[in-house]
This record gives sequence, structure tokens and C-alpha cells, in this order.
Amino acid sequence: MIYMVKLTGQNLIAGIPSSKGKQSYRSINPRTMKRSDIVFTDANREEIDSAFESAEHAFFKVKRGDIPDFLREVSNQILSLGDQLLEIADNETALGVHRLKNERTRTCDQLKKFADFIEDDGYKEIVIDKSYSDINPSKPDIRRMLIPIGPAVVFPASNFPFAFGVCGGDSASAWAAGCPVIVKAHPSHPVTSEIFGHAVNKAIEICEFPRGYFSLIHGKDASVSEELVVHPKAEAIGFTGSQGAGRAIFDLASSRPRPIPVFAEMGSINPIFIYNVKKDTAEQLANSITLGVGQFCTKPGVIFLNKKHIVLIDEVIQILRNIGSGILLNDSIKDNLTSKVLNSSKISSVDIRLGGCPLKDMVSFESTVMVTDMRTYLSNNVLHQEHFGPVALFVICEDGSDFLKIARYLEGQLTATIHVDISDSSCAMDLFNILTRKVGRLIINGVPTGVEVCEAMQHGGPYPATTAPHTTSVGMYAIKRFLRPISFQNVPEVLLPVELR
Amino acid sequence: MIYMVKLTGQNLIAGIPSSKGKQSYRSINPRTMKRSDIVFTDANREEIDSAFESAEHAFFKVKRGDIPDFLREVSNQILSLGDQLLEIADNETALGVHRLKNERTRTCDQLKKFADFIEDDGYKEIVIDKSYSDINPSKPDIRRMLIPIGPAVVFPASNFPFAFGVCGGDSASAWAAGCPVIVKAHPSHPVTSEIFGHAVNKAIEICEFPRGYFSLIHGKDASVSEELVVHPKAEAIGFTGSQGAGRAIFDLASSRPRPIPVFAEMGSINPIFIYNVKKDTAEQLANSITLGVGQFCTKPGVIFLNKKHIVLIDEVIQILRNIGSGILLNDSIKDNLTSKVLNSSKISSVDIRLGGCPLKDMVSFESTVMVTDMRTYLSNNVLHQEHFGPVALFVICEDGSDFLKIARYLEGQLTATIHVDISDSSCAMDLFNILTRKVGRLIINGVPTGVEVCEAMQHGGPYPATTAPHTTSVGMYAIKRFLRPISFQNVPEVLLPVELR
Repeated sequence: MIYMVKLTGQNLIAGIPSSKGKQSYRSINPRTMKRSDIVFTDANREEIDSAFESAEHAFFKVKRGDIPDFLREVSNQILSLGDQLLEIADNETALGVHRLKNERTRTCDQLKKFADFIEDDGYKEIVIDKSYSDINPSKPDIRRMLIPIGPAVVFPASNFPFAFGVCGGDSASAWAAGCPVIVKAHPSHPVTSEIFGHAVNKAIEICEFPRGYFSLIHGKDASVSEELVVHPKAEAIGFTGSQGAGRAIFDLASSRPRPIPVFAEMGSINPIFIYNVKKDTAEQLANSITLGVGQFCTKPGVIFLNKKHIVLIDEVIQILRNIGSGILLNDSIKDNLTSKVLNSSKISSVDIRLGGCPLKDMVSFESTVMVTDMRTYLSNNVLHQEHFGPVALFVICEDGSDFLKIARYLEGQLTATIHVDISDSSCAMDLFNILTRKVGRLIINGVPTGVEVCEAMQHGGPYPATTAPHTTSVGMYAIKRFLRPISFQNVPEVLLPVELR
Repeated sequence: MIYMVKLTGQNLIAGIPSSKGKQSYRSINPRTMKRSDIVFTDANREEIDSAFESAEHAFFKVKRGDIPDFLREVSNQILSLGDQLLEIADNETALGVHRLKNERTRTCDQLKKFADFIEDDGYKEIVIDKSYSDINPSKPDIRRMLIPIGPAVVFPASNFPFAFGVCGGDSASAWAAGCPVIVKAHPSHPVTSEIFGHAVNKAIEICEFPRGYFSLIHGKDASVSEELVVHPKAEAIGFTGSQGAGRAIFDLASSRPRPIPVFAEMGSINPIFIYNVKKDTAEQLANSITLGVGQFCTKPGVIFLNKKHIVLIDEVIQILRNIGSGILLNDSIKDNLTSKVLNSSKISSVDIRLGGCPLKDMVSFESTVMVTDMRTYLSNNVLHQEHFGPVALFVICEDGSDFLKIARYLEGQLTATIHVDISDSSCAMDLFNILTRKVGRLIINGVPTGVEVCEAMQHGGPYPATTAPHTTSVGMYAIKRFLRPISFQNVPEVLLPVELR
């Protein structure tokens, strides 16, 4: 393929292509199983050190007031890559050009929204307690604000090559906060990642930003990720991916001599509780289960319903049958899903009513519906685990109090959803209150997929949905992850940050 | 002693005195080395389970609107204990009645300030993105707010029996957030703790609060603390104390199957950099070094100065000589300080210019001044460690660039201070910028002791000052530690929290 920008498979260390490492890899087209024509080289320690050195330098040099223009320029550069970007990303992810086009819009909007958001000082939580010292002259003059925390490491997701990719939400929010970002390219889509990398570097050049504000690191080998997490100059980690990988990064960061915060969003089973079925409920559910081949962290994984609504299951199955199978992002997701479904299906009271199989010789999985009863659900832990892919489990319950029992038993979730007759929704009050305790977002009569990028969005939740329940990884408040407060006491104007003068 | 309330040495589990455990202990008067007349019993697992069970129940039952009155009633109950409280606390801490009286005022003010603070909904960070769905009808109605995180465990400090005690800042902010609190009484002042415990229970009774909103647990044995930290129903930990204990709690909480946040404030060396000396600088420093017998987490531990200001050291020594020795809080603090000073003094270029010794047969330590040069400081790690007690190290530097070198080398700090001529403070700009990166609070021409309780206060900082640089443990924003965001999507009014309707 002739690319719109020259690609080299090298790491981009503060703008400089570099490939000093020994390990290399290529991405694989999940549709054709062909390997990419570009060979990517894992970064070595020297390159990682250099990326952090430059990031530290950039951290001191960057001016917060210049950041909005930089974010907008990154968005411009992404758009100026044209539609070949969609084709390339589709080759690496099989997500389809239509979906990727929407994701590009979202990614650019996200960058521009952060640019707008930080043009108002509100997010800095400025408090000037002058009145405090004015009332009592013996009291000091104390002024507080949020400042950037320092160089951040971002681990993008496989399932959102744009919106949670090199220029995705984690990078956008860290940059917006004033933090240089070192991105570890996802080995599932390194070509896409490198293209984005060049776009960022172009923006850095145009905006005359310090080049260390961004580096792109390749590493198929886990040791590269480990070195990034334990690096003495790293101050925060953003991660989107599986529970296993997220927890490993959290454990490593927490056991550093100097622990640093890990903002890991690790998915969820996103339970749906059905009190009431409407005409379009089956279609709504089927579409949500298979959106992006079920590879959404907000995919509804488990649906609880009363046996009087049992016909809904057949309706969903009918629609899913027509949707059929879908191509997954990569082999490891296929293997993982295959083993999860196999383990679940081994439980005697779990019925596989549709699908349940990977497709031979293809990175593909059938749309799958499993059905069980409440007792089986409560007593089998594997059913509480995310089955990442186009798979849903229906759990048949006896009455409303079963919902409460299950809700109390649930782990932390990104979302929970209740389907209920709005004119009679008070029957769901107890369930609503219990779920409030467990989730980051509570939805009535909708589906959890579709995470709006707005100020009111909370995309997070208690562990194991995330490792940082205080934070969100989508929406404007995502910026707070990369900020920390500082107070200035009796500091003369000449030394004070301008915002506090 | 005849106490103003009946004391039993029992744990207070949701209002019920209980002593089912096997281990027991007494506190020791550091002035007389006499043991308390009350025997305290470590809680056992059953009691801890019961405290959490009740806390969970209280969490669902408490109404956020009722909390301000509860906090004010706790303050009333503390005051109604009268001045015997000061005497009792002085017996256990030797901090002196005058200091303790001020600390009581601060503790009550703190509770009342949180009561006032939460009467305005601002702290809930409510965002109603109605305009978002109004502009585009296909978009959902999303509303976000902060909600309490759940039962919190509080480990009070030895050095602030009131302000960081049973009803101190951690408890006050967790209660204010809507979180039930399980306090682990500090074994240095269990009598004081029990008295506060009864005051809280009285307030709970008067305000008709769920009794599980507070429990008091005794445990001299480390296993009690461990059980509190790993308990499945614990949602957050507040801790004030040493780096060793704080890190142990952090490590334990991070390695739980379900990790929970630890807000540990672990002290600091609070460096002071001297560009300029004024008439009262020596007195200011000497008082700050020995305030509370040097047992402040903000005690200035290391003072960097140019050799042209070397006479300042003699002036400080002169004043400290008059202050003499002081009684420390307990034996373990004395032992720790003794070994730290011994290790430092073993370094050949470290001069003990004053003091340096524990007093025989007493929990006491001389006011101590150590002096060294920059090279020695940079190459000896023990000199970077907190020496908790009336001890300061002066480091003689060659020129201003030495300050920058040292500042770059420093670990995270609660505070840093610069003494500089205000009319010519731009010489300190580079130092100021480097220190901004490292500290929670930056002070010009003052001393770090004296942490005001106000909205603009940041009492925290990068590790090892705390395990949570995003948060503060003093001031109104301390409440944020015990809150987490949630979004509600298309939720009908009847189910929505009142604030979001």
C-alpha cells in the first residue's frame, strides 16, 4: 500500500524516529490474516529514557495558554490525513469504514471539546481565600489551584483505534491538563498508531510546541509496558483494556518505590434488569450486544428478566441470528472469548441457545446467547466475568426480589440499566438505590453502549470496572486525572501563576 | 481519676460497648510513664464484621440533608465534655493544656465548617447536560453528581489527638460526604479516643442517626489494622502518620482482591530555602522547629542556606538552647528519632551543633541542630528522611544554583518554603518553579507549621508526602476523598436524587 505519510515502523521519540531495539512485530489484518507490510520495532530502555527526559523538559516548557490551539491542530491534522486513515484502520481492526468514520468524528470532537473546556479557567478549581486573610489580618493569604501532574503514560485500547487511541480520550485529557504524553502503541493497530503519531508531531511543529510533549513507543513484548510503568519520571498511567492487563499495570505501579496513580478502565458486564418490555426492546438489545462485534466495554453482558418476559429471549435470538458472526479485533480476543464461553457452557444449567463458537481459521465469533437461572448465576463466578465479544447471558428470575438479591451481589460496573414502565417506575426504587452504589452510570430504558462525550458523562465505576472510582475516562472531567492541587501561601504577585494574581 | 463520662476500655460497635477480643493494652503517660487506669481490649474479627455490617446499613439509611446538624452536634458534644478533656489528653500526649485547647477549637471549627460547606450543593459538582439533549433530541438526558463512596476507615494520628483524632479532619470530611466511619483508636491516646467516641454516639442519638454511622475500634496489635484494611466492606482509608505505617496500609489495600483508595498523609521534611534573612527569621525558625516538640508533619526539617547567612544557625541554636528538651508523645517516636539522629550523626561531615540526645528514662529529646554541606546532603539518603521531633538540619550551600540542584533532587513534600526579599523575589523564580513540581504547598517568607482550615488549603503532595497527590487532608476539599461521580441517563424524576431533578 502507498501511504499518505511515510511510515517506518520506528518509535517516535520526541519527534525523532528511532529503532534501536531488538524485537520486532507486524500487525495482522483480522479479515485476511495477512501481516502488515511495515515492521515495527519494540523500544529499548535507552529510547524510553529519552522519551521521558524530553517529556520532563516539555513539561516545564509548555505554556498552558497555548494548549487549546495545539489540541485543535491535532484535530486538523487527523482530518487532513483523509479517508485512507479509515481504510488503514479497517485493515488492522475489521471495524468497518462506516464505524471508523464516526469514531474519527468523535475523536476530533473530543480534542476540540477539551480545547474549548480549558479556555475557561473553571476546571482549575481556583480558590483565592483573600477574604480569609482580610477578615483576620493574622491569617496568611492562601491561594489554591490545580496544576498538571507531570508526564503521563497512555495505553490505548484495541477496540477504539481512534477514540481511545494515540489521540484518544486519555491523551487528549492529559495534554489538555498540561501533561506530556508517552503513548504505547497498541500492537493490534501499530500502522494506525504511527499515522496518528505523525499527525501529532505535525501539530507540535506548527504550534511550536516542545517536541517531548508527545512520544510514541512500540512494544509487543510486555517488558516495554513494564518499563514504562516503573519509569521514575512517569507520574500517571491511563489505560483502557482488559481486567488482567489493567490489574497487572496497577499492581506494578502500586509496588514502585514511588507509587503513581493508575487510571485503568477495564470493562464490565453492564447488567440490564428488565421489569418491562416494549416493542423495540429486543432490537435495542440485539444491536447493543453486537455493536462493534460486541467489543465495547459497555456491551450489555448479562440481562436479568422475569420468566414472564421469557419470549424476549427468542426475539433477541431471532435478530441475532440474522446478524450472524462478526470478525473480532485479534486472535487473543478470540481465544479469550472462546475459553470464556466454553467455561460458561460447561455449567450444566447454562444453555447455549445461539452461537457459542469461534469460526475455524478466522478471527471470528458467532453472535451468542446463553440462558440460565438465578441460582446458577449466583453460584458460578465465571458468569460474572466479562465475555468480550458478541455474547450475552440471559438470567431468568422468579420475582422482583431476585433482582435485589443479584444487585447486592454484583461487583463494580461501568453501567447498569433498568427497563421499567416510566409511569410506574417506583417499583424499581430499591433496585435503583442498590445499583447506585455499584456503578458509574445508571440508565433507564436504554442501552449502555454509546458513551456521550459531555460534561455530565461518568465513564468509570468501582473496581473491577476501574482502578480509580473517583475519576472518569470519558467526558470533560477526564482532565482531572492529570491534575493535582497546590496551595500558595503569601506568595508575591511576581512569583504567582497568572491565574492566581 | 473520676471521668466526666463512664469509660470502659471497650470498643464501641455502632453505639454498643463490646470487648470480645483477647489482647489488651493501656496507654502510657509520657510525663510520668504511668499506665492508664483503663484497660483497652483489641477488637476481634466478629466485632469488626459487626461494625462494617452496621456501617453498610447506615450508609443506605442516612439522609445527606441531615448531616450538617449531626456535625454541629458532634462539635457541641465535644465542647460539653468541658476542660477535663484537655487534662486527659495532656496525660496521654504531654502536649500541654494550652495547645490542646487551641486544637479543640480547631477541631470543633472544622466540624462546623464542613457543616456549612455541605449546606451548599456546590461540592456535589452537579452537571445537568439538559442543553445537550435539548440541542440534539437524539441525545440522552445525562446528569452527573458526586455521591458518597461508602464506609471509610480512619487511622488517627498520635500527634493531633483532637484535630486528626476520632472527630478530626478525616472523620469530619468522611461524615460530611455521607460516609459511615470506623475509627481505629490510636494506642497512644485511647482514653481520649473513647471520650470522643461517647461524644459522637451522643450526637448520633440526639440527631436520630443510624448508629452504624460511627464505630470505634481498639487495636494495639497490627492485626486489627490489617483486618480493617482488607475488610470486603471497606471502601476508603484515611490515614495520618509515619511513612512506614502509611506505606504498609497502602500496600495492603492495593493488594486486596478489590483494591480501595488509601489517603495516607505521611509527613515530609518541609525544606526551607533561605535567600534572605530578616530580624525575626531565627526566632520564626526555632519556634517552628520545636512547635509541639517538633512533632508536626509540617515541621521544617531541612534548611538550606548560603554560607553568607551562616550566622543564622548560631542565632537559631541560641534560641533552641533556651527551649531545651521536650517530652515526646511516646516511646516509639523517641526510639525512632534517636536512631535517625544517630544514623545522621555517623556521617563524618554532619556536625551535631546542639542536642542530639534522648533523655535517659524519659520519653524526651533535646532540641537538636545538625549542620552539613550540600555535597554530603545529596549523597546521604538518611538526611532526606523525616526526623520526627525537635530536630533540624542546616545545609550550607555555595550559591543559588546549589538550591536548584537540591530542589531537583528532592522527593515529594507537603510543603516547601522560600525566604526571599519580596522587592527582589524574581531571583527565586527558577527555584519556585522546580518546587511547584514537588510540593502540596509553597510558602514565601513564613514557616510551614500552621495549616489553616480553609477552602484554599492543600495539605498533601506527591509521594512520599502522601499516597494520593490528587487530594488534600485538610481544608474543605478533603471531602472529595470520600465522594465519587455517577451519571444518570434518562432517569425519570421519581427515581432521580432530589439534587438532580
